Order: sequence, then structure tokens, then C-alpha cells
Amino acid sequence: MKAVVLQAGHELAVNDVPEPRVESPNDIIVKVTTASICGSDVHIKYGEIPGIPPGTVIGHEFVGVVEEAGEAVRQVKAGDRVDIPAGIWCGVCAACRRGETQNCSNGGVWGGGYYFGQPLQGAQTSYVRVPNADLCVLPIPENVPDEQAVFVGDIFMTGYHAANQGGIRTGDTVVVYGCGPIGLCAVASAQFFGPKQVFAVDRFENRLAVAARLGATVINAKEDDPVNRILETTDMEGADVAIEAVGSAESFNQALGSVRRGGMVSVVGLFPESVELQLPILGLYGVRISMGLANPSSMGPLMSLLSSERIDLSPLCTHAYPLEDALEAYDLFENHKDQCIKVMLKP
Amino acid sequence: MKAVVLQAGHELAVNDVPEPRVESPNDIIVKVTTASICGSDVHIKYGEIPGIPPGTVIGHEFVGVVEEAGEAVRQVKAGDRVDIPAGIWCGVCAACRRGETQNCSNGGVWGGGYYFGQPLQGAQTSYVRVPNADLCVLPIPENVPDEQAVFVGDIFMTGYHAANQGGIRTGDTVVVYGCGPIGLCAVASAQFFGPKQVFAVDRFENRLAVAARLGATVINAKEDDPVNRILETTDMEGADVAIEAVGSAESFNQALGSVRRGGMVSVVGLFPESVELQLPILGLYGVRISMGLANPSSMGPLMSLLSSERIDLSPLCTHAYPLEDALEAYDLFENHKDQCIKVMLKP
Amino acid sequence: MKAVVLQAGHELAVNDVPEPRVESPNDIIVKVTTASICGSDVHIKYGEIPGIPPGTVIGHEFVGVVEEAGEAVRQVKAGDRVDIPAGIWCGVCAACRRGETQNCSNGGVWGGGYYFGQPLQGAQTSYVRVPNADLCVLPIPENVPDEQAVFVGDIFMTGYHAANQGGIRTGDTVVVYGCGPIGLCAVASAQFFGPKQVFAVDRFENRLAVAARLGATVINAKEDDPVNRILETTDMEGADVAIEAVGSAESFNQALGSVRRGGMVSVVGLFPESVELQLPILGLYGVRISMGLANPSSMGPLMSLLSSERIDLSPLCTHAYPLEDALEAYDLFENHKDQCIKVMLKP
Amino acid sequence: MKAVVLQAGHELAVNDVPEPRVESPNDIIVKVTTASICGSDVHIKYGEIPGIPPGTVIGHEFVGVVEEAGEAVRQVKAGDRVDIPAGIWCGVCAACRRGETQNCSNGGVWGGGYYFGQPLQGAQTSYVRVPNADLCVLPIPENVPDEQAVFVGDIFMTGYHAANQGGIRTGDTVVVYGCGPIGLCAVASAQFFGPKQVFAVDRFENRLAVAARLGATVINAKEDDPVNRILETTDMEGADVAIEAVGSAESFNQALGSVRRGGMVSVVGLFPESVELQLPILGLYGVRISMGLANPSSMGPLMSLLSSERIDLSPLCTHAYPLEDALEAYDLFENHKDQCIKVMLKP
Repeated sequence: MKAVVLQAGHELAVNDVPEPRVESPNDIIVKVTTASICGSDVHIKYGEIPGIPPGTVIGHEFVGVVEEAGEAVRQVKAGDRVDIPAGIWCGVCAACRRGETQNCSNGGVWGGGYYFGQPLQGAQTSYVRVPNADLCVLPIPENVPDEQAVFVGDIFMTGYHAANQGGIRTGDTVVVYGCGPIGLCAVASAQFFGPKQVFAVDRFENRLAVAARLGATVINAKEDDPVNRILETTDMEGADVAIEAVGSAESFNQALGSVRRGGMVSVVGLFPESVELQLPILGLYGVRISMGLANPSSMGPLMSLLSSERIDLSPLCTHAYPLEDALEAYDLFENHKDQCIKVMLKP
Repeated sequence: MKAVVLQAGHELAVNDVPEPRVESPNDIIVKVTTASICGSDVHIKYGEIPGIPPGTVIGHEFVGVVEEAGEAVRQVKAGDRVDIPAGIWCGVCAACRRGETQNCSNGGVWGGGYYFGQPLQGAQTSYVRVPNADLCVLPIPENVPDEQAVFVGDIFMTGYHAANQGGIRTGDTVVVYGCGPIGLCAVASAQFFGPKQVFAVDRFENRLAVAARLGATVINAKEDDPVNRILETTDMEGADVAIEAVGSAESFNQALGSVRRGGMVSVVGLFPESVELQLPILGLYGVRISMGLANPSSMGPLMSLLSSERIDLSPLCTHAYPLEDALEAYDLFENHKDQCIKVMLKP
Repeated sequence: MKAVVLQAGHELAVNDVPEPRVESPNDIIVKVTTASICGSDVHIKYGEIPGIPPGTVIGHEFVGVVEEAGEAVRQVKAGDRVDIPAGIWCGVCAACRRGETQNCSNGGVWGGGYYFGQPLQGAQTSYVRVPNADLCVLPIPENVPDEQAVFVGDIFMTGYHAANQGGIRTGDTVVVYGCGPIGLCAVASAQFFGPKQVFAVDRFENRLAVAARLGATVINAKEDDPVNRILETTDMEGADVAIEAVGSAESFNQALGSVRRGGMVSVVGLFPESVELQLPILGLYGVRISMGLANPSSMGPLMSLLSSERIDLSPLCTHAYPLEDALEAYDLFENHKDQCIKVMLKP
Repeated sequence: MKAVVLQAGHELAVNDVPEPRVESPNDIIVKVTTASICGSDVHIKYGEIPGIPPGTVIGHEFVGVVEEAGEAVRQVKAGDRVDIPAGIWCGVCAACRRGETQNCSNGGVWGGGYYFGQPLQGAQTSYVRVPNADLCVLPIPENVPDEQAVFVGDIFMTGYHAANQGGIRTGDTVVVYGCGPIGLCAVASAQFFGPKQVFAVDRFENRLAVAARLGATVINAKEDDPVNRILETTDMEGADVAIEAVGSAESFNQALGSVRRGGMVSVVGLFPESVELQLPILGLYGVRISMGLANPSSMGPLMSLLSSERIDLSPLCTHAYPLEDALEAYDLFENHKDQCIKVMLKP
């Protein structure tokens, strides 16, 4: 079967790889119907995440149909349409027992190499072997199309995580820095907590337009200083919650500068750089900072919100390509061409 | 000044009463601009709440303008437009220190006689003396009309309380029994918590129409069995949260019958009758029940949601009368005439 | 092998039953080293819990050593000493995905017949087949003896659940009605939440003596009115949390009468009778009631508290018998003979 | 009256200052019976906290007796023994309405100059004027001596805040970096949350001895690497919660290095320096950081724990001096002489 395979020298290629088989009674084989490209895949292409050797099939956002199920699998059966989270977990380690399956000691991320635990082949291909299937996969309701279901196990649950760990309360003012796919999902998710106002900050007009459709008050950081704007809107007190979905020291500091005393900075960006934390000031001012991967336990509730049409993420899905044209799709996504937000690959 | 005054024999009258004066440095005098009629006022008229002697001015829902402020008052000044909660609190007793100001040992409800603590004259009149004004009153933003602000201190915060104490979480299924003014506010408030679906149950089509405008899936209990409907919709599992806003044993039992294992029944109805609690079954099934008055700390956030136009409660305000025609207004409200939901009195 | 088997006519017998075998890749066979008798077993003997047919092996409190593990089991292996909760769960149903494994749609209780889900043979015998072993069993640290570990999966987690769902906060006053094994575990567990004072109510001096060793202020209900005593101690305000661990209408009402406005009644007793809930009064007073089975996710933390010697439950273990003398052990336990609190059976 | 007064040139002096008078109806005058010296007072002496002009009376830890009460004060009266928090609040600003009185927009800290809001004269003197007395002061139960009550409004509530914002849960492993007075109170407070084990790290044996009396497992950082020790004890997973009560980049980084994925670093130290936050690693690892001043709403519960003898903080009170010998007391405290932990000043 064809797959998007990491090459040495910061390249990808569409190559032939062997088809996977059931190896354990708890495995399933999923026939991929839609896989999407994530910003992390671009980081991986450029070697910015260590521990992922050339030859790795990449991609961790996908949905599909169960092709075969191991003998101990009871929740799903061949023919079922399923959503798969970006990574798997064991259900029995200390972290899993605490309910923090995203921090599983025995987990791994599709196409994430050794960096995220056990190496698992990625999903930008035709078939994927999914261990611990009963625990990790989620059936997809009939009325949710692939093009939205594929968000649930990665960018939607991560954007939701940003809002949820932010502890947004009724009437809060929220600011989301960064309107890439995860930032947009954070904007959408912030609305589930009854905020007074959600600000969305970015430099691309097409992303801000989607943020506005999702109910945000937009701030184009090219034209306006977001920190000043937030302070002015809040009687110089600051927002209750700031979400950092860019991954830069600049926006992290803007997030810190935007929140009120006792406010929360919720971080979901992947950071290439460290930041300096001004503890002499922040210690008295009083701020909370929360970071980490999304908890997949939100997948069920988020899928139910798509199914009940409480939320429509279709504006994020701007392009679709056959898997064999994946390199063209990456070029489009990576270089922000043609107002691209999210690209689907169809094996 | 004229006031709606409780009479012996289950009657009300519009009579002359003396104007109040500042009695303590923390008092303010509020000139009432709008007072509304609450279902509790009807209970009081019929003597169903003990400890309220004839001669009491009734009414606990009002907004107005500060006429005069005691010397120790700092937050508001003459001329400010303010919202006043249904009752006051002291800020220093054990309950207040816990943040449960609704359970204040030294509080009282406007026109609530001795039943709710210290007797306070009610608000269906021209002027009201408000003790502890700095703690208890809330300025009203310019763009929020009296007709919605007046809901914040009573029915809106109570409906919100129903949703909030219900512990609604993202993706939950919620059912609200009763679409009177508080039930409708509960429907509106449930939406602040990211539910999958909010069912609203009533027998009046005009109320159900408002519930539908507020985003609910409506069930007319004359035509449909709400418990069956909820169970069918939830794969026979039950809703996550049921809100009881009727105040009858029948709907309390329906609420209990509607929730899943581990679900919550949030009670805000005033009950004339006891219920039998089937502990042999419920103990193993696992249900939580929460009841009590609303916490006024939600007033600020709720006012901000009105001000930012996140929610529009104008459909609840169906009628307005001059104070001197209060008896006609009560007749309309009490007898569900002319599709009445809420009536404003204008002194 | 020998087992305690339910007979028709409210009798038990020690009979021969077949040994279990691994039936699924996720099963283990546990060689029971200690099983204890629970109050529920006595209810079962007398037919007070429906759906448990004669012939059922009873007993749901046990620890042992893994004799054999199915091929898909990874967490434990033959020879491991393990604690097993009173019931199992599937890990994938809606309740399990919410983390409420005690409400699993596909679960069952050892010796609990059809009443608790799928029928499972009980544990007062030599070998037990445990499905879903990776999810449900917990390794026992070397320094925790069987006689305390056996409490973790049933009475300790239930007593802890009583305290935890009670929402006890630093400085709270707590009252525990009933000092049977679960009530005593509730007394012990209440101490984990930093209370000001924990009252323990019972009529047996030997139980009250254990409660006192666990840090409680004891009230002998034969000599003292517990509600009056609580009210007097709390300036007539009431306790913050009352735990009902008796299972009678009388103590349920005492619990309700003991709590402050906004307080919590946490119910873990099994009730043979309904209660009348005075909603006209309670609705305004403001009380919360929580009931249901314990969540096994507390087993790990509780085992760690035993292992670190933060808590010593050895005073609860008053007797031990060989399994073949189980009927004598039941007589002792059931009739409160010889200051019995808890009896161990040794197969 | 005599008072400890800040001088230019990093000096203190015991000088005469005018006695305060009631200025507003909500004021009280407190006759100070005990004031204690805080580490912050030493920072102030050396000019490390800006905005505190020479001539300021310093000291923010004190208890006393009400000498006179303004006409609107209702909670306390002349003769009452009261505890006063380190700072006051207004009760009506946005932060106060959220219950975060420590972040009050109109507050101030005794002897804290302009840095903490409105300048208030300090408490190392004979009389203090306390505004907003009803809101801010707490009566002291008869059986709690000055020498422990004086901790409640500052170091005890701050140590408790460290534990509380840490979100410690039953069975958690906790590590407290720094066993100064606040660190020791954090050790004591961590025990209120049912931890498995509390580690206490310091370099002074006398402080570690007190930590051990308060139930901690001590680590002398001169002899042992605390991070290694924590990791080894937790199967290399890390503690659940680390409390930073030193205020140095070194211990902040140790705290970060000590916690598990998803763990919490709770900061209460005052920091003279910034730290570098390794977001590329921490972002995926998943850590939460919380900082800020203590919420005085814990004062009531903490006082009740002292009154019920659930906790004994007397080992912290090592010395007492007449106010006129304050400079000698500062020398002792500041230079860690004579195993000093806390010094009381008696006006």
C-alpha cells in the first residue's frame, strides 16, 4: 500500500509499505478513509521533533472503517466506522488509572517515533493496526462526515483541552492567540463554557474570518496590539483566560500580559524556544499556567456535539487530495497557499 | 407612595405606605423604575408561605436608580442605575464567609416577612431602602434595559443556579421540567455549559415556543411522556442532568426517572408537597439531588452576558402595567391570560 | 473446591463447586488467600437483594494470587498478589468512558447474581475467574497484609466514597451515622480531607471504640440524641457533611436534620425502606444528597495510604476462620457476637 | 506610641508615631497584643520591595483586641480578640465579587506602601486602624493563643494556599521546597489533603526537625539531591505536587523537575530573579504552575483547626521580645541565630 514516508534530508515521499496485520487479540485493522495533515507533521518533516527515524510513515489524524478485529475486541466489529485518537494508551498504568490517558507510560503517537513512547506507524496510508482498540477507538455517528470526525481525535480535542484546562467560567473574557487549526478549535470550544467574549488573534485574514464565524471578536495582530486591546476592553483588568496556540515566546508573553490577577494561561502550542518567566512580578500578581497534551476522554462529548449540530467545523476543511498527491497537499498546507486551513488526504 | 400590600383573606391591594429613609451609613434608597411579578408573590398572596403578615409590601424583583446613599457607601452614588437581588446578606456570617450568601444568617427577602430572615418591605412600590448596599447591589450597564436587568437578581440567577448546580458538562443531555419564567431561564442557562441537547417540558404552547427560541427541544407533556422520550433519545440510559422547575411530586419523580446512573436532579421549584424517595432502588442506581436558593455571586457574570448580547431574555417579558393597575397585572399573570409569561410594574 | 453457596430458604452451605478456567484472553484465575464477609452477604442470605438464584457462590471481598493469566493480560502475571474490586467493568461503555466504572453497563458483582449486571460467581471459595483483569485488578504492595488489603476493593473504597462524594473541605464538621465496617471506613476516610471534627454515631460500644481510635468524637445514640448534639456543637448551624452508613429512614432523617444550609448528605447505606423527603422545607433550606456505588478509581490511592502506614485499618479485622467453618463465621458476624466487626475466611 | 519604622539606608528604628483614630464608620482600632516578624519585613528593610517610603511603620502579622469600633461595625465590638489578615479588601470590586479578595483592586497590605495598593501603616506598634473591619477581621476562639493565631492571617494561610492551589488529592506524593515559616505551614497544610507522603527540603537542621514533627519525610539538600530522591521514591514518575516556598530559580527548577506528567508546581516564594521556562520540553510533558497571594477565606477554617487542636503550630514560635527590642529581634530572625524560626513582638 502507498504511504507518506519520512525521508532523510527533511523530505517526505509517497512510497510502498507493507500492510499491517492483527498481532494481538486486542488489535483491530482500520482501513483509512480520510487522513488529514497536521502542523506537527510539518515539524516532523523538518526534523524538529527528535526520535522519529526516516522510513516512518507519518500522520496521526485519521478515520476509517474496521477491516478486521482481534478475538478479544468487543466494542467494534468489521464494518464499523471509527475515529482514532492521535495516540493510544494502555488503560492500566498510573497515569491511565488517574484518567490522564494522554500521559500513559505505555502509549505512543501514530507516526511519532520514539519521542512519544512506543513507535507506531502513521496513518497517511491505507491500513493501520490499532492496539488496545476497545479502549481507544470511538464509533462515528452516521451523520458526522469524515471531514469533521477526523478533527475529533486531534485538533478538536486539543482546542477543547485548551479551553477546558483554562477553566473558563460563565461570563469570562477569553483570548485565543493563534488561529491555526488548533486555535480555531479552541475558539469554538471556548464557546461551550458560556463566555462573555472570545477574542481571536492572528495575522491571516482567512483564519480570522473563520474565527469570526465561530463567534470570536477578531484582532489582526498586524494592525492592532492585542494586549492593549484586551486591557482596554476589560477596564485594564485583563482577560480571565488566555490560550496560547501559536508556540512562540512572543505570544506566550502576550498571553501572560493579557490576563487578570488570578487568571489562567492555557498553553497548547508546540514551542521551539524557551521563555523567561518574570517570577518577581508574576508571583505577587498571581497567574496560573497550564500545559500538556489533550485528554482523549473528551472525544465522546465532542463527537456528540458534532452529531447534534451544536458546532460546525466544516469551515476548517478547505482542501482534499488523493493520497498519491500528498506532496502537493503538504506544499499547499505548509506554505499557506490558497487560503488553506486543513487538507484531507484520501487513500 | 403607592405599594402592592398583602391583605388578610388572600387579597392584595394598592395602598399608600410611608416612604423609606436612610437609617444606617451603609443604606441606600432606590427609586424603583421597574418591578416584576414573581410566582412566589402569588404563593404569598394565597398565604402559602408562612410568616408574612398582612400589611407587608410585596415584590422582590426590581431595578431602579439610587436616590440617596448613606455616608459609608462607596460603590454606588445617587443617580446610578442598579440591580438588586431578591434578598440581602451581611457578608460576615459563617455562610457568607463560605461564599454562600444566599444562606446568610442575617439576611432577608424583600416582602418575604419573617420566613426568610429579617422582614424587609417589598419592592412593588416607588422607593426601597437597601441595607448593605455596597455588598448587594450591582450597577446595570447602559445597554441592558430594565425589562431584562430585572430578571438578573431573581429568576435568571435562579434558572442559572439550576443549571450550575446541575454540574452540566460539555456534551451532556439536559432536561428541564417546567417552562415558567425560572424554567425558561434554566433552559437559557443550560446552554452556557456546552450541552449536546436541552429538552424542555411543559403543557403550555406559548412557554414551549419561548423554550424553543432559547434552543431547547420541546416536549409537550400533554401529548408525550417526557420520561419515555428522554430514555428513548439516550439509548435508555437517561439524561445527565434533570432540572425540576415545577415544584410538584409528579415532576420531581419524572426528573428522578429521567437521569442516568450517577446523574443529577437539580431542584429549584417551590414544593407544596413532600415526595417519597425510593432509596432501596436509588441507593444502588446512584443519583445526586441538589436544592436550595440561588447564589447571587452569579449576578455579575449574568449581567455581562446580557450586556454582551450573548443571551436575549426579552421574549419572557410579555406585559407591562402602571403600578396602580397591579391587581389587573396579577390577574393576568396568575391566570395565564393573554399568553402572559412575565409582567412588569411601573411605579 | 469448597465454596459458600446460597441455598433456598435463607440458608448458606459450604459445598463443592467446579474450579473456574481462563475463558477469554483478558481473564485471570485468582487463587483466593483471604475473603471476608460483608453485610451485603447477609442481605443476600435473607433474599433481600433480588435476582440472586440459589446455587450462587457468594462473597465479593477478596484478595489472592494470580494462578494463571490469559494471553492478552499484560499488567499482572502468575504469582502476583492482587486486590480485586467488588465488581468488574468493561472500560468502554458510556459510564466507563466518563470514568464512572461503578456504573458500567456491562459489569457485575461477584456473587451478585443478575441484580448488578452479568452474574459472576462469588469469592468465598478457592479460585475465581476475573475477566478484564488488566483494567480491574490492583497489585498489592508487599507490606500490606491480606487482612487490610481485602478492605480496599469494597468497604474501604465505599467508606472513602462516602467521604469523597460528601465534598468535605478543610475545617468542616462531619458526622457519620453508623459504625459498621463501612461507617468506620468513612470515619477513617473523612480524616483525609482536613476536617475540624468527625462525629461517629452508633449503638454498639465496641464499634464506637474503634471509631474513637480512628479519630472520631463518638456519640452513643442509646444515650444521646445525635442531632441535638451536632446542632449544639455547631452553634445550631449544623454539620457541613453527614454520612448515612446505616440504611434506615431514621438515620437518613437524622442525617438530613444534622446538616447546615447548603450541606451534604452522603448516602452509602443499603436501604430496605423508602423515606419521605420534606421538599417544602428542604427546597428553601438548601441541601444536597448524593448516593450510589463507590468508584474503584480510589483503590490505588487507598492502597498507597495503607502501604505508607498513613492509616491502620487492622482494628476492623476482629476474626478469621477457615473457609470450611464459614457458617460459624456468618453466625458470629450476623449476630454481633464476640465484639465482631469483620471476619476473614481462609480457603 | 512606639513603632518599628523603615529608615532610609536599609535600616529600621523604633520610633514614636501618632496613634490612629476611627476615620470611617466601618473602621475599628485594634490594640496590638502580638505582632510577628515576617521574611517580607526583611525584604522591605533592604528595599527589595519598591514603593515603600521611609517613615512607613512596618509589620503585617498581628493579633489584638478591639479598642474602638466605628458606628457601622456590627460583627465585632470593643474588647473582642481578633485576628487580622496581612491585607484588607473592599468586598465589592470585580476580584472581591469573584471571591478572590487577595486580588482586590482597592486593598492594601499593612506596612506595604504603594506596592500592594493603598498605603496602610504597619502593625509592629501598639494601635492599628483597620478599615472594612466587618469584612476583614476574624474573632479568635479563647483557646487559641496569640502565638498561633498570629500565623493565621499570613504564614499559615499562605502555606495552606500553597497546598490548596496545589490541588493535592488523596494518596498524592507532595514535596515542599523550603522550610522557612511558610514552607513549614505548607508541610502542615499538605497533611489536610490525605497525601501518601510529604517530603520537606531544606538546609537547616532545626527547620527540618520541625518539618518532621509536622509529619514530613525530610531531605537535607546539603546532603542529598532532592530531585533524585523524589524520582527514586516514585518509580521515576515524579511527585504529584511540588510546592516552591524558597523563591529561587534553583528551587523552582527543582520543583519542576520533581513533578510527574500533569503534576502541579505551586509557588508561594517571593522571587528576586526570573527563571527560564523550557517550554519545548514542558509543553509535551504537561505541567501546571500556580502562583499568587493567599486567599483570606481560608482563615476561618484554619482557625477552627487550631481551636480543635487538629494542628499545633507552636514549634514555629521560637522567640518573643518586647517591641522596644525589635532591632535585636530582627537581628536574630534575619541571621538565623539561636535556631530562630519565628519571633513575636510584644508592644
